[in-house]
Amino acid sequence: MHYKNDIFLKVVRGEEVPRPPVWLMRQAGRILPQYRELRASLKDFKELVETPDKAAEVTIQPIDELGVDAAIIFSDILVIPEALGLPYQMEEKQGPFFPKVISSASDIESLYSAEDAEARLQYVYDAIKITVKHLDGRVPLIGFCGAPWTILAYMIEGKGSKTFSQAKKFLYTEPLLAEKLLDKITDASILYLKQQVNAGAAHLQIFDSWAGLLSSEQYAQFSTKYIGRICSAIKGTGITVFAKGAMNALDDFAKLDCEVIGLDWTMEPDFARTKVGDHMVFQGNLDPCVLYASPESIRGYTIDMISRFGKKHIANLGHGVYPDTPLDNVKIFVNTVKEFKYNT
Amino acid sequence: MHYKNDIFLKVVRGEEVPRPPVWLMRQAGRILPQYRELRASLKDFKELVETPDKAAEVTIQPIDELGVDAAIIFSDILVIPEALGLPYQMEEKQGPFFPKVISSASDIESLYSAEDAEARLQYVYDAIKITVKHLDGRVPLIGFCGAPWTILAYMIEGKGSKTFSQAKKFLYTEPLLAEKLLDKITDASILYLKQQVNAGAAHLQIFDSWAGLLSSEQYAQFSTKYIGRICSAIKGTGITVFAKGAMNALDDFAKLDCEVIGLDWTMEPDFARTKVGDHMVFQGNLDPCVLYASPESIRGYTIDMISRFGKKHIANLGHGVYPDTPLDNVKIFVNTVKEFKYNT
Repeated sequence: MHYKNDIFLKVVRGEEVPRPPVWLMRQAGRILPQYRELRASLKDFKELVETPDKAAEVTIQPIDELGVDAAIIFSDILVIPEALGLPYQMEEKQGPFFPKVISSASDIESLYSAEDAEARLQYVYDAIKITVKHLDGRVPLIGFCGAPWTILAYMIEGKGSKTFSQAKKFLYTEPLLAEKLLDKITDASILYLKQQVNAGAAHLQIFDSWAGLLSSEQYAQFSTKYIGRICSAIKGTGITVFAKGAMNALDDFAKLDCEVIGLDWTMEPDFARTKVGDHMVFQGNLDPCVLYASPESIRGYTIDMISRFGKKHIANLGHGVYPDTPLDNVKIFVNTVKEFKYNT
Repeated sequence: MHYKNDIFLKVVRGEEVPRPPVWLMRQAGRILPQYRELRASLKDFKELVETPDKAAEVTIQPIDELGVDAAIIFSDILVIPEALGLPYQMEEKQGPFFPKVISSASDIESLYSAEDAEARLQYVYDAIKITVKHLDGRVPLIGFCGAPWTILAYMIEGKGSKTFSQAKKFLYTEPLLAEKLLDKITDASILYLKQQVNAGAAHLQIFDSWAGLLSSEQYAQFSTKYIGRICSAIKGTGITVFAKGAMNALDDFAKLDCEVIGLDWTMEPDFARTKVGDHMVFQGNLDPCVLYASPESIRGYTIDMISRFGKKHIANLGHGVYPDTPLDNVKIFVNTVKEFKYNT
C-alpha cells in the first residue's frame, strides 16, 4: 500500500525523516467537537465501538481536524475479554464494569477459545476495512490490543482500581491459573492482531496500562513474557509496546521483537536510551497536562522534548490526551512538531 | 525518654541491631477487629481522627495485637488543608472530598496563617500526648504529615483522582501561585511537626502519596524542594521521607536532611542504594498484595526482601496495608521479621 504521508512508517522502518511524526493516544475522542456530536446521537460508548461505519468515522476525524501523521482505530482494549465471554459495561465517568469475573479454574475453562474470540470481533475488522477505504492512503492506520496482564487485571478485578489488588492477589495465590489465563488472552490477542493486519492495519500497538502496579519480578513473569510472545508471533508488521509506568522493564524491552517503545512522561529519554539501546524507536512522552498550559509553554515543552529524544522518535503524549484538553492546544502541539526540522 | 523496645530508633541513629525493626503503614486501621469495633461506635472517620482518646486507643491497638516495633499516630494527612481553612469530608469507600478548593490568588490569601493552622491542630497533639502516656515507653511513636505537593494536589483537585490533572494543570498554568501555596503548606507543616515532637513524637514521616504523577523536573521544582525545607527545619528528630512512585527523585533524596527513605515495591533495593548512597536507612518495601498469599509465600518474600536490603533497613510494606488483608497474614509478616537474625 502506498501512503501519501508515510513519515510514521518510515521512522518505524529506521529511515531518515526531516522531523518526528506525530499523533496522540486517544486522539479519536472527546477532545473533538465532531466526536462529541456523533457520540451524543448514539445510545452509549459501546454502540460506537461496535458499529463499524461510526467507528471508522471517528477514527478519521482527527486526521481531518488535527492533521496528525497516523490514525488509530477507534475501539477499546476490553473487546478481548468480551470476545472471550466476559461482557463489559462502560459507565459514563465510572469506567468499565464486568458483571461476571474470573475467580477459578472453571471460570477460565468456560471462556470461549482464542479462535472463537477472534471470530467474534468481526466488527473491528469491518471498522478497519471501512477506515482504510475512506482514508484512501492519506496516513497509515494503527491497530491495537491490550497487553495480557492489563486484560487479566480487568477480567479478575471487574472494574478500574487504584491498586488492582484483587488481580494482584490472584497472581500471588493462583500463579498457575494466572498463567493459564494469560496464555489464553495471548493466543486470542495474536489472532486478533493478525486479523487487524489482514483488514488493513499498517502498524500495531500493545497497551499495558497497569504495568506500573507490579514489582519487577512479577512484571517479567506475568507481563513482559506474554508481550514478547505476541511480538514474536506478529513480527513483520511494525509493533509499538507502550507500558505505562514500566520503568523497571525497559532493560527487558530491549530484547522484544518490536520496533517502537512508548514512554510515559516520567521516563527520561536519556535513561530510556541507556536501558533500551540504539536500535529501538521511542514514542512519547509529553505530560498530557502540558496541553493545559499557554501556547508559548506548549511550544517550549514540545521542542524541548523533541530535542531531548533526537532522531528515532515518534512525537506523542506520555498517556492518552485528557478529554477536557482545549482543541486549540492540541493543534499547537501537533503543529509545533510538524514545523520542527532536525539539524542534519 | 527511655524505650523498652528501641530497635526502630537505633536503626534510625545508625546503630547495630540484630534484625530489622518492623511496622506497617496503616497498621492502626481496618485490618484489626478492635479498630473496626471502635470505628463502628462512632459517627464517622473524622470523629475518630478528632477525638484524642479514641485516636490514641487505635494507635496503640497494633502494638498490643501485632507486636510491631513502632506506633504511628492515628490521623490523616488532610488535617493540614482543613487547618488552613479547607474542610474535608471522608466518604466511605469514596475517599476524601473538599467542598471548597483553591483556584485563585485570593483563595490562597484567604487561608489561615501557618501559625493559626498549627493552633487549630491541638487535637492531634493531645492524641499524641495520651498515646505516649499509655504506651509508657513500650515503643516509640511516629508523627507524620503529607508532603506539600500531595497536600496541594488535594487542595486543588478537591478529591482523589487517577491523574490529578486539575492540580497538575495549576502547576503548568500558575506556577507562581503554586509556589506560594506550597510555601504556606510547608510553613504550616513545619510548625505542625514541631508540635508533634513537643507532644512526644519520637520520629516523623513525610508521605508523598502522589509523587509518581509528576515528571522529574516538576517533581524537583514542586516537591523535593519543599520536602527539603521541612527536613532542614526539623532536623534533630529522625525523619523518614516516603514518596510513592518517586523513582526519578532518589538521586535528589540523597541530599535531604533526613535519615530514612521509604521505598515502594517497584523500587529495587540495589537500584535505590546506588542512587541514594550508603548513609541513608531504607524503609519498605514488600508489595502489600504479598500478604494475600500463603504463609510459606509470605515468609519467603519477607526473608528475600530483608536479605536484599541488608542492614540499615526498617521492614515495612511498600504502601499502606490493604484493609481486607487477613490479620493472621499480617502477623506472619511481622513475626518473620522479628525471628530473623542478621549474619554478623
